[in-house]
Amino acid sequence: MSDRPYPTSLGTSDATSIHLLGQDLAADLMGTVGFGELSFWLVAGRRPSSGEVRVLEAVLVALADHGFTPTAIAARLTYLSAPDSLQGALAAGLLGGGSRFLGVTEDAGRFLADALATIDGPQPTDDAGWDAVALGLVQRTRAAGGLVPGLGHPVHKVEDPRTPRLIAIAEEEGLRGPHLRLYEAVGRMHEQVLGRRLPLNGAGVSGAALADLGLPVEMLRGFALLARAAGLLGQLAEEHRRPVARDIYDDVEHRARYVPFDDTDGG
Amino acid sequence: MSDRPYPTSLGTSDATSIHLLGQDLAADLMGTVGFGELSFWLVAGRRPSSGEVRVLEAVLVALADHGFTPTAIAARLTYLSAPDSLQGALAAGLLGGGSRFLGVTEDAGRFLADALATIDGPQPTDDAGWDAVALGLVQRTRAAGGLVPGLGHPVHKVEDPRTPRLIAIAEEEGLRGPHLRLYEAVGRMHEQVLGRRLPLNGAGVSGAALADLGLPVEMLRGFALLARAAGLLGQLAEEHRRPVARDIYDDVEHRARYVPFDDTDGG
Amino acid sequence: MSDRPYPTSLGTSDATSIHLLGQDLAADLMGTVGFGELSFWLVAGRRPSSGEVRVLEAVLVALADHGFTPTAIAARLTYLSAPDSLQGALAAGLLGGGSRFLGVTEDAGRFLADALATIDGPQPTDDAGWDAVALGLVQRTRAAGGLVPGLGHPVHKVEDPRTPRLIAIAEEEGLRGPHLRLYEAVGRMHEQVLGRRLPLNGAGVSGAALADLGLPVEMLRGFALLARAAGLLGQLAEEHRRPVARDIYDDVEHRARYVPFDDTDGG
Amino acid sequence: MSDRPYPTSLGTSDATSIHLLGQDLAADLMGTVGFGELSFWLVAGRRPSSGEVRVLEAVLVALADHGFTPTAIAARLTYLSAPDSLQGALAAGLLGGGSRFLGVTEDAGRFLADALATIDGPQPTDDAGWDAVALGLVQRTRAAGGLVPGLGHPVHKVEDPRTPRLIAIAEEEGLRGPHLRLYEAVGRMHEQVLGRRLPLNGAGVSGAALADLGLPVEMLRGFALLARAAGLLGQLAEEHRRPVARDIYDDVEHRARYVPFDDTDGG
Repeated sequence: MSDRPYPTSLGTSDATSIHLLGQDLAADLMGTVGFGELSFWLVAGRRPSSGEVRVLEAVLVALADHGFTPTAIAARLTYLSAPDSLQGALAAGLLGGGSRFLGVTEDAGRFLADALATIDGPQPTDDAGWDAVALGLVQRTRAAGGLVPGLGHPVHKVEDPRTPRLIAIAEEEGLRGPHLRLYEAVGRMHEQVLGRRLPLNGAGVSGAALADLGLPVEMLRGFALLARAAGLLGQLAEEHRRPVARDIYDDVEHRARYVPFDDTDGG
Repeated sequence: MSDRPYPTSLGTSDATSIHLLGQDLAADLMGTVGFGELSFWLVAGRRPSSGEVRVLEAVLVALADHGFTPTAIAARLTYLSAPDSLQGALAAGLLGGGSRFLGVTEDAGRFLADALATIDGPQPTDDAGWDAVALGLVQRTRAAGGLVPGLGHPVHKVEDPRTPRLIAIAEEEGLRGPHLRLYEAVGRMHEQVLGRRLPLNGAGVSGAALADLGLPVEMLRGFALLARAAGLLGQLAEEHRRPVARDIYDDVEHRARYVPFDDTDGG
Repeated sequence: MSDRPYPTSLGTSDATSIHLLGQDLAADLMGTVGFGELSFWLVAGRRPSSGEVRVLEAVLVALADHGFTPTAIAARLTYLSAPDSLQGALAAGLLGGGSRFLGVTEDAGRFLADALATIDGPQPTDDAGWDAVALGLVQRTRAAGGLVPGLGHPVHKVEDPRTPRLIAIAEEEGLRGPHLRLYEAVGRMHEQVLGRRLPLNGAGVSGAALADLGLPVEMLRGFALLARAAGLLGQLAEEHRRPVARDIYDDVEHRARYVPFDDTDGG
Repeated sequence: MSDRPYPTSLGTSDATSIHLLGQDLAADLMGTVGFGELSFWLVAGRRPSSGEVRVLEAVLVALADHGFTPTAIAARLTYLSAPDSLQGALAAGLLGGGSRFLGVTEDAGRFLADALATIDGPQPTDDAGWDAVALGLVQRTRAAGGLVPGLGHPVHKVEDPRTPRLIAIAEEEGLRGPHLRLYEAVGRMHEQVLGRRLPLNGAGVSGAALADLGLPVEMLRGFALLARAAGLLGQLAEEHRRPVARDIYDDVEHRARYVPFDDTDGG
């Protein structure tokens, strides 16, 4: 028992070779397989088609950076405090990839996958069919006091420009599957139930597109984090080149105002 | 002063559009620009050529995963403890990206860039010229009590298979520049000084290749971390699918043996 | 709007003084207030009594370290990889403070607080009264498919020695309040419902004791993390003095066995 | 070899008992040993005297919180983004505990310990003797292009109020040892060399005081991090009770101004 092996399908090596996913890393992967392609393969255990790579990379590009988000600010402030530890600044930024912002990608994928699992019999074949499923789904979600993940956006109140673009790319690649179709139907039908029209945001539609690629829903947040890792790298390179974190810190500290602990008017 | 702006060249958005690097994210980047390509652009501020993308992605593929490394084990154990927080497990893994393992990529790039900066006059044009530069560099490094970053590997004692492959890819793309040439010369000449032959490892040659792409040396560790983020995603997906962290934990704990604090024989 | 202040009751300073919680840090806190005492004050906004400090510190001592836990191993492995970044190793360890292990303290506190909030009328005044409440609580929890947080322990199958000790300390200090009394009753009554006797573990009883101090349940996990920070400091000091992470890494890697991705017998 | 034990002096347990540092956790530590006291013991391997505990806790209190520092802001922004993961917010804050701010405690301790190690023969016995050592030390440091760690403070330009207080506490406890005496002498003599008078800041004098307690210099940053963990807990509790991170985020984002990548006037 104490000598039981630890099985893995990922990296293994010996004195003369390195294997990854059962492939020869140097001979078969380097220079041949793209980085987005490899990240898909690592998670899904199969090499994606070129169309799948294009959809995945469109998602990664869509989610990489959105300017001075909480995660970007946290990463920059951490880099200011500990410039010798780039990994710490990157990690601090990624730690904001939780339920409220980056989690939407996973939440939307899971919401749609769960809904698809409840369909009795074959899935719809036309928009009218999907609309009926979506109507019931939004009604049930609302009745249970829940929210549709990825519906609405604080800035893009009418339309998130990433949404139609990602759907178009999936369509071009023949990968506009049931998760995207159901999500689009939610986009058409929710107004009937909720009484106002909200856009499907880019993080949510990204989750639908990734789920249509067959990626496991438990890992969808991981792809949002991978995308954000590249964005944070850009933020940290910019912070190195043209720093603003010191100004942000000074500006925030300058506005600190002491209030007694129990002063409920303070905020 | 209190209203000073925070300049950025990265993500900006308004109600109807999202821009990144001055480009329209949806119209001009999604579906058009690859993920590795974008990560280069975010850091370097210019769109890379297709050859540069190929070299960068070969590096990212080379560094993505090496099996049960300390970072992979730390990520899996963290996922075991806090499965609700994928970002925490990923961050824990990346935090091992410091001086000892992942730092080699940056250290090698910096070592070579510093050496190139000290060359008086034009750079060598043939191997003999690079060999002379390398010989002096290894001698000076040794005299100062330093080590050449990326020289030697605990497993690949004769040759790291990634090294010739990456050099070949750079050559194919016309990107085998002075950092790589000097590093190759170090690989040829160090035995004269150190008295034994060591391989140039893949992390070190990756740093040389990235420096030849014109990426800032301060960010080379960042690309190693980005590569590792994809690898850790694979590790965490595998941990979800076929867990081993509980076994690792049990096995380690099972071997704990109490020794008094001052027992110097204990280890 | 752009100049709105950020209110705070914590640290503020000017050229000649530093204040914390409205107190003069140097004159009134340093040398006068203990560290555990301050951590209570920072969260609760009031200085605790000496009895409250004793209970809190007993909890912090109880939760500080449990040997080679997943968090300790992750911290040690991260320190091995990035010895220049002690903060990264500590952070990696704390990131395991999630739902499965350290979260129990918070979960138990919340579970009990929620149950107490549902009691109609006055709380019981004797054990028989608490037993009746506990019986209903365990029955409802089981009927809903839930688990009682902190019931059972993988090692201490009969009794966790921290549990009676912490209850005794709270009793000595007059701080054995409704959360502890209800939890003790759960310890007596669950066998009737679940059909087997399980011990209340130390992490759960710690949550009950902290909740009885009036600390907000949202922050109970935070005290477990603070306790663990001290324990991890001990682990990292030991790793520096008498390293084992390299052996752990070697032993784990040595047992890696490649299996194809779809090999369902692999684990 | 594959079954070699992992030695430890910290936590061990079996079915009926839990030991820590060779003590019975429940019977001998809980309720008896304070939290600061335990953290000293965990690192130093010996139970501190009550005077040592008082100095250590004064340091921990001194370093716990300084308002809206970069680490506090990073922790609050991370909590805003991922409120379900308190450990992630705490870790993000601690990751700023690097070279620039929190590192001063360790740097000062190491600087003084190194200087003391170079004294030939017995250490000075009066201020004049220490002044002579300090003068040489500051001269050598300056000649080597270095800085004295902990000399100067951005806000407390004349005196950091923590400094005389901590020295007084150490004196009261009979623990004003060579590190503090040498640091005080540096405070008196640097003006002769540097041409201007700077205060010894609280982080630096904390390092001197901890080194005088015999704590290993490699772990001094760890105590600064432990102190900060309590402070961050206070910050996160306040963020939960009276949030400001959303305002900070909005204010920062509102001031973002796009500039082209190569616009060197941008900052």
